[in-house]
Amino acid sequence: MLILMKPDATPADIDGVCGRVRELGFTPHLIPGQTRVAIGVTGNQGAIDPSLFAHFPAIAEAVPVSRPWKLVSRDVKPDHTIIPLPGPRATCAIGGGTFVVMAGPCAVEGREQLMTAARAVCDAGARVLRGGAFKPRTSPYSFQGLKEDGLKLLAEAREATGLPFITEVVDTRDVDLVAEHADILQVGARNMQNFALLEAVGSVRKPVMLKRGLSATIQEWLMAAEYIMAKGNYQVMLCERGIRTFETMTRNTLDLGSIPLVKRLTHLPVIIDPSHGTGDYRSVPALARAAVAVGADGLMVEVHPDPARALSDGPQSLTPANFAKLMESISAIAKVLQMKI
Amino acid sequence: MLILMKPDATPADIDGVCGRVRELGFTPHLIPGQTRVAIGVTGNQGAIDPSLFAHFPAIAEAVPVSRPWKLVSRDVKPDHTIIPLPGPRATCAIGGGTFVVMAGPCAVEGREQLMTAARAVCDAGARVLRGGAFKPRTSPYSFQGLKEDGLKLLAEAREATGLPFITEVVDTRDVDLVAEHADILQVGARNMQNFALLEAVGSVRKPVMLKRGLSATIQEWLMAAEYIMAKGNYQVMLCERGIRTFETMTRNTLDLGSIPLVKRLTHLPVIIDPSHGTGDYRSVPALARAAVAVGADGLMVEVHPDPARALSDGPQSLTPANFAKLMESISAIAKVLQMKI
Amino acid sequence: MLILMKPDATPADIDGVCGRVRELGFTPHLIPGQTRVAIGVTGNQGAIDPSLFAHFPAIAEAVPVSRPWKLVSRDVKPDHTIIPLPGPRATCAIGGGTFVVMAGPCAVEGREQLMTAARAVCDAGARVLRGGAFKPRTSPYSFQGLKEDGLKLLAEAREATGLPFITEVVDTRDVDLVAEHADILQVGARNMQNFALLEAVGSVRKPVMLKRGLSATIQEWLMAAEYIMAKGNYQVMLCERGIRTFETMTRNTLDLGSIPLVKRLTHLPVIIDPSHGTGDYRSVPALARAAVAVGADGLMVEVHPDPARALSDGPQSLTPANFAKLMESISAIAKVLQMKI
Amino acid sequence: MLILMKPDATPADIDGVCGRVRELGFTPHLIPGQTRVAIGVTGNQGAIDPSLFAHFPAIAEAVPVSRPWKLVSRDVKPDHTIIPLPGPRATCAIGGGTFVVMAGPCAVEGREQLMTAARAVCDAGARVLRGGAFKPRTSPYSFQGLKEDGLKLLAEAREATGLPFITEVVDTRDVDLVAEHADILQVGARNMQNFALLEAVGSVRKPVMLKRGLSATIQEWLMAAEYIMAKGNYQVMLCERGIRTFETMTRNTLDLGSIPLVKRLTHLPVIIDPSHGTGDYRSVPALARAAVAVGADGLMVEVHPDPARALSDGPQSLTPANFAKLMESISAIAKVLQMKI
Repeated sequence: MLILMKPDATPADIDGVCGRVRELGFTPHLIPGQTRVAIGVTGNQGAIDPSLFAHFPAIAEAVPVSRPWKLVSRDVKPDHTIIPLPGPRATCAIGGGTFVVMAGPCAVEGREQLMTAARAVCDAGARVLRGGAFKPRTSPYSFQGLKEDGLKLLAEAREATGLPFITEVVDTRDVDLVAEHADILQVGARNMQNFALLEAVGSVRKPVMLKRGLSATIQEWLMAAEYIMAKGNYQVMLCERGIRTFETMTRNTLDLGSIPLVKRLTHLPVIIDPSHGTGDYRSVPALARAAVAVGADGLMVEVHPDPARALSDGPQSLTPANFAKLMESISAIAKVLQMKI
Repeated sequence: MLILMKPDATPADIDGVCGRVRELGFTPHLIPGQTRVAIGVTGNQGAIDPSLFAHFPAIAEAVPVSRPWKLVSRDVKPDHTIIPLPGPRATCAIGGGTFVVMAGPCAVEGREQLMTAARAVCDAGARVLRGGAFKPRTSPYSFQGLKEDGLKLLAEAREATGLPFITEVVDTRDVDLVAEHADILQVGARNMQNFALLEAVGSVRKPVMLKRGLSATIQEWLMAAEYIMAKGNYQVMLCERGIRTFETMTRNTLDLGSIPLVKRLTHLPVIIDPSHGTGDYRSVPALARAAVAVGADGLMVEVHPDPARALSDGPQSLTPANFAKLMESISAIAKVLQMKI
Repeated sequence: MLILMKPDATPADIDGVCGRVRELGFTPHLIPGQTRVAIGVTGNQGAIDPSLFAHFPAIAEAVPVSRPWKLVSRDVKPDHTIIPLPGPRATCAIGGGTFVVMAGPCAVEGREQLMTAARAVCDAGARVLRGGAFKPRTSPYSFQGLKEDGLKLLAEAREATGLPFITEVVDTRDVDLVAEHADILQVGARNMQNFALLEAVGSVRKPVMLKRGLSATIQEWLMAAEYIMAKGNYQVMLCERGIRTFETMTRNTLDLGSIPLVKRLTHLPVIIDPSHGTGDYRSVPALARAAVAVGADGLMVEVHPDPARALSDGPQSLTPANFAKLMESISAIAKVLQMKI
Repeated sequence: MLILMKPDATPADIDGVCGRVRELGFTPHLIPGQTRVAIGVTGNQGAIDPSLFAHFPAIAEAVPVSRPWKLVSRDVKPDHTIIPLPGPRATCAIGGGTFVVMAGPCAVEGREQLMTAARAVCDAGARVLRGGAFKPRTSPYSFQGLKEDGLKLLAEAREATGLPFITEVVDTRDVDLVAEHADILQVGARNMQNFALLEAVGSVRKPVMLKRGLSATIQEWLMAAEYIMAKGNYQVMLCERGIRTFETMTRNTLDLGSIPLVKRLTHLPVIIDPSHGTGDYRSVPALARAAVAVGADGLMVEVHPDPARALSDGPQSLTPANFAKLMESISAIAKVLQMKI
């Protein structure tokens, strides 16, 4: 941290601030300037909260200079985190050079719908089945998911196809139940800063995919991952699914521009969700190709046997035929970039 | 809902859409235009999800035309919701013509800090004591609150001052515990779309204050209130605490411009939190005055006996002396607007 | 500026950076830390561009620590800027303790419309007439204003009422013409970073009102004012008219929360425009009251004799009767705050 | 447009609205509903401004249902717009199946800097040289460009390399001068709604590249292009360069997610600028790959012989060596997608 004193700060003001720095266990370093004095602070382990100095009237500004995260940081662990996929078909790992495609319906609606979708995405080359059993919906009057029955259907589909499955958990009280069935737990965008839930999935020993919140900064997103890892669960992957901006013609604004930065900051794998990112099935294939090209580790995409009759997110769901075409198109790009798929 | 067909839609396309409308139990009305046909849909109770029509290729656009909320709507209940304040000093109600000020420290840090703050805000005219026992923090390494011990200290402070207290609940598993002690439950901004928590506080029979999410639209905010009311708890108040925008020199952007609209849309009382809204104690008094002037029903403001040593949110906390001055200043404005305080 | 070296920076790296600092004419100060070295830079007059150091691979971060503006800064000129109003009725000044209300139609549509509006706002107590002659419109097919004829009508209305008038200038080629007629020149939100226009109005010797851009940070807004002042025109006032955010139920998000901060940073007067800020005439009176309460120096509000037939911005325009009521309501609040009106 | 009456609207209210619709030259169509009446409006050529109906108290809502643009619309002109590149090396066209790379320094700083950059980007395969002569800068104290001298140096570089050049025009008074020298005129993000400038470049008969404004919606961006085309200049290309959001770790948020939508809405070519989009040269190559993959028509990228000493935008500029590597990497992806480069 760097503390900037006001131009009219007296020696007594400066002594007062240095005293407070020492009181906190740190070391102050005076830097005299032409018009004012700055005080460098060292000796801290992590970031210092600038607000600890907010009430000294002679301070003009306190500027933090370190990152607040640790376990997620590539400075701490330079090597990529690699998360092996469980199950009979699992010959690959997330973050290990394979571009992993997760696909399936937004919500599990019934056995036939799920089985049709699962077989289709398996045949087309997906590595993980996705499907929502507990659905967070904006309206209390919308379909809320099949809950435990949905989990059981997902387990059946895994049995039938060999694909491990990922599903969302929305309440701390459900974490054990979901962890019992699912291969990967998803924390949704609206729960990204539900810290109780982050701690609960941090206590589980299954991989967790953490979606970026609608208005979460990259720093907050990484801090949310830090919450999970701080509880001992290191199998965390991040998922960019679009942020909220002023633009309303797309459902969200898919922030591909942040991916290279995120990959520099953290060793965790990053998945892209172009279905929520654009909200329109016609835009999904182009963004899926861009996701491979930008250096992501995988894709999460919504596929429904009959999107026009989907109970949730129909407009952004691909048909099985369109999904098969998408797989071909992204495979060609993955090949150019020396990634398996 | 209004469905707009593409210019080149055939009669068969139009018939197909009309058939789907009837299949859903509604009535289609054809509106021929110069270059294309529109179809008005009637007979629905609530809003129709436009995505139900997303996969008809001959449809250009489906435009929803009703609001999705019911219980929160002023169309349904034109009279203001009035929430009586419990406790010996409670001679007023929220939403009933009194401008209710809630004040106290961001976090309960200990008995002395809390008691000093409680007595100060009581003496200056606050009607409700605020204090955080369960603290949602961005970093897992920050102070997380005194939890149950904090609740007990708040109850002690209520005993000593006669002020009812409001405190945040962050996990469905804590709702019963918090409801046992607190007079008003707060759902924080980061949990505004934690639907499991909304349902849990909806099952309690104590007033709930619902903070607007950092990037929540007014519609989402009202839908979150609808979640609570749909479970039978009608004692809901809203709290505007600033939204996230591109501006970083203020902590958040306090959206006072939406308050008159919100008051037209819903019968629920609206509280303003200028402490989080600006993040700077120097801006709090001016925004508190603006909150009265704009027609809000109350204020939530952070007061700490020694802001420079606060464990949380020091920079935005008022000293007791500054809070007393603020009360005088807003009282004068409340009087002009014929509100008690 | 503070330069943070990476943990593995060598003494040679550090020497290299220090050399570059000296080469730029500044003085480097070494601050050794536990894991890395920081370098404080002093001797600069204004802010140093951090990008001057962006390509040293051993630098982790370069943190600027001064404000980039000068002439607009309250550090440089602690007293309020006071801008006298011209014309026969001008017994007050903007920024000098009077809350100045500017009112009139969005666009000048014709003599009768303008005269009716001008007399109405004058009778109700407005101090300045507003009216658009050159209209910046999103669509090339919308009404673009009466241009020079509009200026002449505004001059007629000034003759008739004694009110000075403010009007927008949208092109460098029109600055002389507009300055010849108008009493105050307005630079609109969409032109806030039209730097050629800022320089052109900076060369005029009439007051300028600078609207904040839709997505302009406070810093960019102040820098735009700096452009005008750097050309020698010190009669600048700022106008907050709402910023663009994710919320679409209000036309813009009126950023009242920034006003106390802006008043601390700069000595320039600040005007609030609740008409554009909310886009709905029903919300204008409440926000006008809030504008007085928050400490602004004045108000700009749209008034039209027949809003339902306005060629531009009808939904946010007040009728003369509603404007008269608004004046009463804000006068009461101004009085409490010891402001004239 | 669809007009929704309030539930309690009387037959007289409805007649009044229908009369106004007819008065405007359109045709009203009554659609009776269970709780209220809707009125469909037909007969209009373009979109109807909903505000024309804002002051009828019995109207609940007026919903526009057509797009406001015409000349830019793919509905009007289904074929791609193809813009031939001038000059001796111009064997390709923008929008015609070649992925066109425009590269060069942010600002022209002098002959040697520009010639070095021009030769480097030409050798690596760029098709157009970019370089700023008139620089719009946030601060009046920053380097503002070499102006006319810069244009002459760019013409020299074209002579030497055969590359046509693109440069920005920032003032209506400079349009003729810039058009005399440049092959493509650029309208910058901050001037996207400088309507006077749009009309001025619309009167020129040289191609124009229109950058998206920092907070411009897709609709506003297309309407700005409509301004240029409405003046008779049909050689318009769009450039996505990142929008402003709450995220500050990247300079802007590159909105690749909107590209497929924009390509569906308009026939105009779309160029991506990953330099401004991310603000960090380390992120540029990944985003350039994504730009090809997402279906853009070209790239604009900043290249400087010595980024550490650039007078403007050094942190986001590539070295010539890095640019050559980028060209290889995007060529491989373009090939997969059957595009020339």
